[in-house]
Amino acid sequence: MTVEERLTALGLVLPAPLQAPPGAKLPFAWVHVVGARVFVSGHGPTNADGSLARPLGKVGGEVSLEQGYAAARLTALAMLGSVKRAIGDLERIERWGRVFGMVNSAPGFDRQPAVINGFSDLILEVFGPERGQHARSAVGMAELPFRIPVEIEAELLLRA
Amino acid sequence: MTVEERLTALGLVLPAPLQAPPGAKLPFAWVHVVGARVFVSGHGPTNADGSLARPLGKVGGEVSLEQGYAAARLTALAMLGSVKRAIGDLERIERWGRVFGMVNSAPGFDRQPAVINGFSDLILEVFGPERGQHARSAVGMAELPFRIPVEIEAELLLRA
Amino acid sequence: MTVEERLTALGLVLPAPLQAPPGAKLPFAWVHVVGARVFVSGHGPTNADGSLARPLGKVGGEVSLEQGYAAARLTALAMLGSVKRAIGDLERIERWGRVFGMVNSAPGFDRQPAVINGFSDLILEVFGPERGQHARSAVGMAELPFRIPVEIEAELLLRA
Repeated sequence: MTVEERLTALGLVLPAPLQAPPGAKLPFAWVHVVGARVFVSGHGPTNADGSLARPLGKVGGEVSLEQGYAAARLTALAMLGSVKRAIGDLERIERWGRVFGMVNSAPGFDRQPAVINGFSDLILEVFGPERGQHARSAVGMAELPFRIPVEIEAELLLRA
Repeated sequence: MTVEERLTALGLVLPAPLQAPPGAKLPFAWVHVVGARVFVSGHGPTNADGSLARPLGKVGGEVSLEQGYAAARLTALAMLGSVKRAIGDLERIERWGRVFGMVNSAPGFDRQPAVINGFSDLILEVFGPERGQHARSAVGMAELPFRIPVEIEAELLLRA
Repeated sequence: MTVEERLTALGLVLPAPLQAPPGAKLPFAWVHVVGARVFVSGHGPTNADGSLARPLGKVGGEVSLEQGYAAARLTALAMLGSVKRAIGDLERIERWGRVFGMVNSAPGFDRQPAVINGFSDLILEVFGPERGQHARSAVGMAELPFRIPVEIEAELLLRA
């Protein structure tokens, strides 16, 4: 099964691009391909229409651990949507490299890995244990843009 | 126009190296070149003489958004100064890869992208839209060294 | 002298793997090798038996600067232990690339570089000044998993 077939089998849909403010021209690329390297900018959780997913805020505060896990899962889908728009076909991805998982953390919240598992679990489900394997950090941020609960940056590698 | 010609046309000057404490021997390199990869350590904003630029502190607190944007712009110049000292000629840079923008953030400040735009805008101005394109994250840190308002890490790629 | 001989000469021992909760299956790899690139997940300080080293908490608060430095040194050993288990022989490492040093920081603590020096100093001691050279950031996090005082992520490069 291809990645897209697995997504379909799981009932998952890649969302539309993040809704940017009208007229905004971003001075960076969501996904930047150089040779076989795919640099992926920090992504947050979005709904199918590209709006920011709720709830916003800090995990361990107004956002529960379970909601943080779900946000990390949505972040994986948002990232795969961006990557697909950049490279055309997700089958071009040979391996995952590095995942940097940032959790907007309420004071004293120290379960960042359990939140970012929402991302890693989805990647392993759709890419399988070998192709989806990745190195990872899961850490607690003071603040994130627009009060998103999770932001994740990554590097992937294309087939030669 | 070369990158240095564009800097000159914009009236911009690359600053001297960061003034380190007397006798300090850093156990890392500001710029570390391995093959075609240029790993750039986290840089902060400096004045032309290599002293830390003011104001220091948290954006959204004692540092305004506009001052944060200006600090990110100065950080780009500091980084280009370090890269030039390491590789000799900025024309050797073929592409930008990844930019990781960290904003020393006051509680509740969530406009990190508007701050780090000071860095991205400058890079695009002097490298142009294709060569200067990059992936980016812009996130909120609890604290940064010496209370700098912005710290930015990057990876660039040299011509083969 | 090899890296392992230098470790022995310094009286240093690579610790056992991090003790994970019973039954836990991690959805990521501590060390992920793709071609010549070695992506290393965020590591924290451990004791020889793989338990988390004490003290836990924030540097500049319940953890002193000196204890933070020691924690960063233990983190280097934990990372080398993981890398050795992944690649078999530390002599396969040709160069260090990037080190991202995160310090669990009490409010107002701004000496993250002095903490992460515990990591960099050890790497330079055992790999030497050329092979151990690296780019580095040292920054202040709001929270880290399990309240570890230091977490460090890295990329290394293998011999061709």
